Amino acid sequence: MNFCSVCGSASIVRKIPNGDHFERYCCEVCGQIHYQNPNIIVGTLSVWQNKVLLAKRAIEPRKGLWNLPCGFLENGETVEEGARRETYEETAAFVEIKRLHTVYNLPHARQVYMIFLADMQHEKMSETSESSEVRLFTKEEIPWSEIAFSSTAFALKKYFENPDFPGVHIGTYWPKN
Amino acid sequence: MNFCSVCGSASIVRKIPNGDHFERYCCEVCGQIHYQNPNIIVGTLSVWQNKVLLAKRAIEPRKGLWNLPCGFLENGETVEEGARRETYEETAAFVEIKRLHTVYNLPHARQVYMIFLADMQHEKMSETSESSEVRLFTKEEIPWSEIAFSSTAFALKKYFENPDFPGVHIGTYWPKN
Ligand SMILES: [Zn+2]
Ligand SMILES: [Zn+2]
Repeated sequence: MNFCSVCGSASIVRKIPNGDHFERYCCEVCGQIHYQNPNIIVGTLSVWQNKVLLAKRAIEPRKGLWNLPCGFLENGETVEEGARRETYEETAAFVEIKRLHTVYNLPHARQVYMIFLADMQHEKMSETSESSEVRLFTKEEIPWSEIAFSSTAFALKKYFENPDFPGVHIGTYWPKN
Repeated sequence: MNFCSVCGSASIVRKIPNGDHFERYCCEVCGQIHYQNPNIIVGTLSVWQNKVLLAKRAIEPRKGLWNLPCGFLENGETVEEGARRETYEETAAFVEIKRLHTVYNLPHARQVYMIFLADMQHEKMSETSESSEVRLFTKEEIPWSEIAFSSTAFALKKYFENPDFPGVHIGTYWPKN
């Protein structure tokens, strides 16, 4: 942050505001405190006849690798709506959310994944502008060495270990030093 | 947003960037896209001997009303760490996270609550700069008409209906017209 988005001033300093516990970008001209907080990524682990829906990424990062359909939650939508929307945008599949399956922290990337277990409503799916290929995988077919992100690998592993687990799996990716 | 935080230009327009599906604040000078996304609020439903820990808010909004200890997730922390930290900041209680209990959407406020079931590690607690009073309530003692937010009311109701439910309760607040 180089300039204050409220007043345009370049007098931005990092400091702990009164009554706060964390450093923020603070404008010394208009007094605005510019908070920055983690983002939510919503997606689905969508199932059709015991097979799981994966999308091959058509865009960076991790282009060409397989992922659960997911993306940033948008203002004004619920987490379930966002998960359904992202699944449709990436795979053209309509899904019905069953329950929250995985919460996955990426503290260094300032992201929290929320992945929902979902049922595909029919077998219709297709590649999209965001996915070069879309297909269903049995447990044995999962391309473990070509999974795009640790969040997806974690959710798939937990799902296949125990598909009927009623709770939520919580995981965290800590970067290796 | 009046000015670009990257280049300081006032030429900020709302438009849908190429390949995107949503309007964003876009800088016409440097090309920066300024994304704005919902925030995560983390907190706990902390239990000691079948009683639940509530804090009376010492600050606006809803000053003087009772709430589960909670607050914004910060960059670099996991949701469990954030929930423990907020509980300590608001009630001086040390708690152990057991599992995710409630996810609560506030689409109009661009917030998603994540409330964890937790055990208090001992009975120590006290008022803080954020809470004018901190105490434990039995089910019968809960001051339903003095609860600060619908997220807290939802989580408490679900908890007392079925304390041992193993899944996650998902709720949404839709503003009345
Ligand atoms: Zn300013
Ligand atoms: Zn700019």
